[in-house]
Amino acid sequence: MKTEKKMQLALQLVSGYGVESSAWRMPGTDPAAYTNTDSYVEMAKMAEKGKFQMVFIADTPVLGGDLRRQSPTFPMDPMLALMAVARETERIGLVATLSTTFNYPYNLARQFKALDVISHGRVGWNAVTTSNPAAAANFGAQPLSRKERYAMAHESIQIVQALWGSWEEGAWTLDVEGGQFADMDKIKPINLQGHYHGSRGPLAIPPSEQGQPVIFQAGGGYEGLELAGSYASGVYANPYDIESAREQRQAIRQSAVRFGRNPDDIKLIAGFIFSIGSTEEEALDRRRQLMSLASDEIPDRVRYLGAMIGLALSVDAMDINEPIPTEMLKRAYPSPQDPRSPRALELALKGLSIRDILAHGVINYHPVVAGTPTQVADFMEEWFLAEAVDGFSVVPDIAFDGVEDFVNLVVPILQERGLYHEDYEGETLREHMGVPYQYGPL
Amino acid sequence: MKTEKKMQLALQLVSGYGVESSAWRMPGTDPAAYTNTDSYVEMAKMAEKGKFQMVFIADTPVLGGDLRRQSPTFPMDPMLALMAVARETERIGLVATLSTTFNYPYNLARQFKALDVISHGRVGWNAVTTSNPAAAANFGAQPLSRKERYAMAHESIQIVQALWGSWEEGAWTLDVEGGQFADMDKIKPINLQGHYHGSRGPLAIPPSEQGQPVIFQAGGGYEGLELAGSYASGVYANPYDIESAREQRQAIRQSAVRFGRNPDDIKLIAGFIFSIGSTEEEALDRRRQLMSLASDEIPDRVRYLGAMIGLALSVDAMDINEPIPTEMLKRAYPSPQDPRSPRALELALKGLSIRDILAHGVINYHPVVAGTPTQVADFMEEWFLAEAVDGFSVVPDIAFDGVEDFVNLVVPILQERGLYHEDYEGETLREHMGVPYQYGPL
Repeated sequence: MKTEKKMQLALQLVSGYGVESSAWRMPGTDPAAYTNTDSYVEMAKMAEKGKFQMVFIADTPVLGGDLRRQSPTFPMDPMLALMAVARETERIGLVATLSTTFNYPYNLARQFKALDVISHGRVGWNAVTTSNPAAAANFGAQPLSRKERYAMAHESIQIVQALWGSWEEGAWTLDVEGGQFADMDKIKPINLQGHYHGSRGPLAIPPSEQGQPVIFQAGGGYEGLELAGSYASGVYANPYDIESAREQRQAIRQSAVRFGRNPDDIKLIAGFIFSIGSTEEEALDRRRQLMSLASDEIPDRVRYLGAMIGLALSVDAMDINEPIPTEMLKRAYPSPQDPRSPRALELALKGLSIRDILAHGVINYHPVVAGTPTQVADFMEEWFLAEAVDGFSVVPDIAFDGVEDFVNLVVPILQERGLYHEDYEGETLREHMGVPYQYGPL
Repeated sequence: MKTEKKMQLALQLVSGYGVESSAWRMPGTDPAAYTNTDSYVEMAKMAEKGKFQMVFIADTPVLGGDLRRQSPTFPMDPMLALMAVARETERIGLVATLSTTFNYPYNLARQFKALDVISHGRVGWNAVTTSNPAAAANFGAQPLSRKERYAMAHESIQIVQALWGSWEEGAWTLDVEGGQFADMDKIKPINLQGHYHGSRGPLAIPPSEQGQPVIFQAGGGYEGLELAGSYASGVYANPYDIESAREQRQAIRQSAVRFGRNPDDIKLIAGFIFSIGSTEEEALDRRRQLMSLASDEIPDRVRYLGAMIGLALSVDAMDINEPIPTEMLKRAYPSPQDPRSPRALELALKGLSIRDILAHGVINYHPVVAGTPTQVADFMEEWFLAEAVDGFSVVPDIAFDGVEDFVNLVVPILQERGLYHEDYEGETLREHMGVPYQYGPL
């Protein structure tokens, strides 16, 4: 089956190491990659070599996880990391997550648009709400209700976009001879005042080559859909199977239509983790090694695996290097509480050892594809041709060699199959994504 | 007269062009320097060649001035500009102004400390309050009273410093072999809740080579002195003469003592604008050219000059290329409203034309030194040996060649006279400034 449409790729920059909690300990990894900006720049350069549409940084303003044994999950600061990448790359898009709940719209508008101008139109803002109570506490606040957070998000995005548009497109005249720096008749206050946020403007920043940054969205539920349909050109989603991805994509497209937009102007980008080997066994070995470096997490993971398939599993009662006993498996069923359960049960029924079921990543945050470059490409082709996604946010297990392997080994297969572009279509993130130029509010 | 002590130098990065409103039109200047990060990086590299202790970015979150004929006075975004400089320089300190009034302490703490770690301990935060009503409106707020703003500033700085110290110094163990990323017993919440700001913490950022960023202060009055004495290692001040500089320096030092600190641990850094020529006449020509490119501003400047010396001056009534008539000058007196008035009158009495009095910069925001490299060095020597300042924030009239001239022509004279260091004393901004290592609140 051939397709005219090409899939889009985002490289998720985790925190310099890769997404697996023990990646920081892997041979070859710079243990201090967290604070070493080179690690982010090198990953982005490699992704640009692979013609990725964008790098993407997730963020929650909180010290996430337990750093006793795990590395942080986000860079020290997403905008500073992207600024370094902007200076040292040419084409790749630069998308950062920042909260609409705990930032002033003026500050958001200013920093994102400055980066967009500096990078010649390559920036996107993943506009999320912050529900994490520990994050709220970092701002001296109680967690807000979902309704309040989304009301704030609407105000924030509207104000930010209006500030972005506060210099009309011809405003920066820069007429050295005539002495006119800017046409002040085309630079206007926005005078927006909502219940939570307000701003008079204007911003002191001219348009970028793509007008203004691209809006992304990542929240779920009815409110997330509405926010996406209203403003977003891209949605980062976390489906575990084709069916739910297709449902999410349809819902997002319908939401865009409800807000008077072309459904093709909003792209669903699904996250998955990849572990590449020259054979499937080698890819699994890589994951087994990661697990053995995080051995303290294994008891909890085994217990949780049990809960996913309705069995009481424990490292004390059984050898995890053995399959789950057939007698036990007869009582197993996939938990309806966790969409990853059917996959876990499928692997258990194949007779994999408990360790190997876990090595397959059945309880990772994203689907895990562990296998050869062809297997990774097959996974992507299947989802893409099923119209379940417009692209992928690919998440390296271990960044230092994972990204390179993806670019050198998986990308050529996708290109060969006609699923992925051979080169950038343009200069800006909007051109890369095939979404319309936008200036000011939609 | 010889001195053991050396003066410190900060280069003020204005907006890529230099401080004069028409600098963007000068031959040789990149008219788009405002949005071209190269302009900031090149200035900082040149300053580093001159062993400057730091670059300094002032900021107010508002579109300042009338851009019809004038360039903006601040970069698009100070932190992004400094991030580029951090990646492309090795030693020079990096100081940005950000408001304590319109930023969450957690966001301030995070971005400044991330940059401090990335730059290996070269960052400073000029912690100001924002009184500008137009800036307040950009945040949907009414201007706050002075009392409220300073109360907020105290809370903000205390929370930011506590967050900076929330990883104890040995917390980042990074033990690959043993598998310990960090010692969580040394990473603690701060649990500070004030009237305006609060944060639980901890921040997800380890110490930098200088512990944490250096605090600067720039506000005046009793509240500003108190803030400086409590927290600041450096104060950016704008005195117009040696006497008032010395008074400000003494007041700041006394304030530090009142808060139990060593007065030598707080440095007064005074701003001045330089215009360098191979003769004084050539330096004035440079300023005359800048004025002629801002000719629309001349009528107002002439009127204001008149007000400074008690005379009704106007471009309609007189030839500005001529001295003020002797008869008129007999009635002149320096206005007590403006500390720059005595200097204006002094030049008028010397018989300078009105144009040349203005060309000398008598109504610029900072003192202007227009002359040969030796004259610039003389000015600096006089202030420094009078113990009026610990250093200078030097402000280029036109950045593209002004900074280079200062570094190549003025710096060697200062070094020759033993007034300025030959090389960096260390690696961090604290070492450059000779202020103590600090971690967490004072």
